[in-house]
Amino acid sequence: MNNTQPCREQIKIVDATLRDGGIVNSFYFPQGFAKALYAANLEAGVDIMEFGYKVSKKLFDVTKFGEWKFCEEDSIRSVVGDNPSGMLISVMSDVGRVDLHTEVAPKDKSVIDMYRIATYARQTAEAVEMIGYCHDMGYKTCCNVMAISKVGEEELKKCVNAVAKSPVDVIYIVDSFGSLYPADMSRICDMYGEAAYKYGKQLGIHAHNNQQLAFANTLACMDKGVNYLDATVCGMGRGAGNCFLESLIGYLRNPRYKIGPVLKFIREHMNPLKRSGVAWGYDTPYLLTGLNDVHPYAAIDFIKAGRDDYENFLGEITHNS
Amino acid sequence: MNNTQPCREQIKIVDATLRDGGIVNSFYFPQGFAKALYAANLEAGVDIMEFGYKVSKKLFDVTKFGEWKFCEEDSIRSVVGDNPSGMLISVMSDVGRVDLHTEVAPKDKSVIDMYRIATYARQTAEAVEMIGYCHDMGYKTCCNVMAISKVGEEELKKCVNAVAKSPVDVIYIVDSFGSLYPADMSRICDMYGEAAYKYGKQLGIHAHNNQQLAFANTLACMDKGVNYLDATVCGMGRGAGNCFLESLIGYLRNPRYKIGPVLKFIREHMNPLKRSGVAWGYDTPYLLTGLNDVHPYAAIDFIKAGRDDYENFLGEITHNS
Repeated sequence: MNNTQPCREQIKIVDATLRDGGIVNSFYFPQGFAKALYAANLEAGVDIMEFGYKVSKKLFDVTKFGEWKFCEEDSIRSVVGDNPSGMLISVMSDVGRVDLHTEVAPKDKSVIDMYRIATYARQTAEAVEMIGYCHDMGYKTCCNVMAISKVGEEELKKCVNAVAKSPVDVIYIVDSFGSLYPADMSRICDMYGEAAYKYGKQLGIHAHNNQQLAFANTLACMDKGVNYLDATVCGMGRGAGNCFLESLIGYLRNPRYKIGPVLKFIREHMNPLKRSGVAWGYDTPYLLTGLNDVHPYAAIDFIKAGRDDYENFLGEITHNS
Repeated sequence: MNNTQPCREQIKIVDATLRDGGIVNSFYFPQGFAKALYAANLEAGVDIMEFGYKVSKKLFDVTKFGEWKFCEEDSIRSVVGDNPSGMLISVMSDVGRVDLHTEVAPKDKSVIDMYRIATYARQTAEAVEMIGYCHDMGYKTCCNVMAISKVGEEELKKCVNAVAKSPVDVIYIVDSFGSLYPADMSRICDMYGEAAYKYGKQLGIHAHNNQQLAFANTLACMDKGVNYLDATVCGMGRGAGNCFLESLIGYLRNPRYKIGPVLKFIREHMNPLKRSGVAWGYDTPYLLTGLNDVHPYAAIDFIKAGRDDYENFLGEITHNS
């Protein structure tokens, strides 16, 4: 009674472990972690590896973050050399947090292949400008519209339409608060697709696991034609984390992708990282922020404080949201 | 962009914490646990509470299991009295593991409302006989056909048809190995529904969380008209566990169900239980047994042995399956 899943050729798996996972530990990964992850991703057949954020060192205190918050050219090259592989290298930049003219080099001077522009719907105009700049510099571009559960349908449609008309390659559906259900995904894919496919753009999905639905929501999007699928090893990511890379590869059953190198990486690097005290993943407070469509920060603080008075917490987040 | 979910009147939430959770700790729950769970379920609006297994004391060593392995009348009454509430009380019996004539009392002598008969497809004839007996004694009955991912479609159809023709009230879809995906669920619901609805029977779903899909698979079944939904507090259940009761109640957004009492129960009883060393829930080895459609026992042993050589484990379970 099991299904066998065909895997479309167009599917692209994006490993975002260093980037979304980096939010958990302020991007302080142990020595050798990034290099081993790069090797594991290569061997596993991952299509795109995101190394972290590219934000301006003028805006953030460099003494408070590891190197993948800034993704300097030298940092990435120390791991990948000239990246002779076919795996693309991406970085994420938030709208307004990078100085385009001094910090985004022309593609022929960079080992980065793709910029993923993270934006709120209200910043659409700036995002489109940033997409244009990165595109003109020679990069592939994605646009990740965040916190869509907080935006009215008309505003979101306008945003997605404006992005679709830009030179962007991929438009991402992002469930920032882990508040969406598979049935929502189907509806949202239709809405994004209407704009994106008209202009020949691809869709992507970045899910969060607050309600243990990151994988299921990713599958729901894939069923609706979404081809760019974000995942992280052991789901490492802010709060409840993301879709698990190993689940996704296991599901696809495509010889292009191999689960073995990811399992080895879990044993050699993720388990020690967890044992060292770095914590993420589903827990009751994340369910409550997901259910109530509020930012997971409150739940992260609640857990860090060692609290478990969930009923009070529920009162706090529902009165403040 | 969030969906609001209508909750059909016919939905029944079945709390199976003592029963499937009991497999984790050989049914040795702390003093007061069952009473507090009963109170929490009542307040939360749970429709049916399963107290455990009813198996013959002749077949199992009573010194090796807590009382909810046997669900004697006195045990249940010590928690619920005469159960003056509207919440139904169920027990599960495996085919061939209970002496019907001496161990199943007529309903008017019992506080139990429902027998859930667990069977493999190959035992269908015995299951039907047992359903008939329990029905004649005055009980509501369910039939849980286990390990369906291992059964050919024709054999499963025959089994479900035979059960549907019996006096059973509810036929359960059971994803014993956590190997099924939401898309499978849709197909299986159609197949079960074709037999069940012809004879006026309801469908139920009992999911496992090996691939973190227990909740998503439960939602997929609900969307297809399945009304009996199994869940456990914190997903407590064998191996990777089950659909989380608190996720399901949160999702339904129906004033009939309240999440508060479940949160209180988690804080007061589940968190201490976890701290005492009782362990269940998603972990990499369960993903691997789920992906390969094999029984979670191998993963339970692997974890208990403190191993994390996942690649070897994968070789072991795929060569032996």
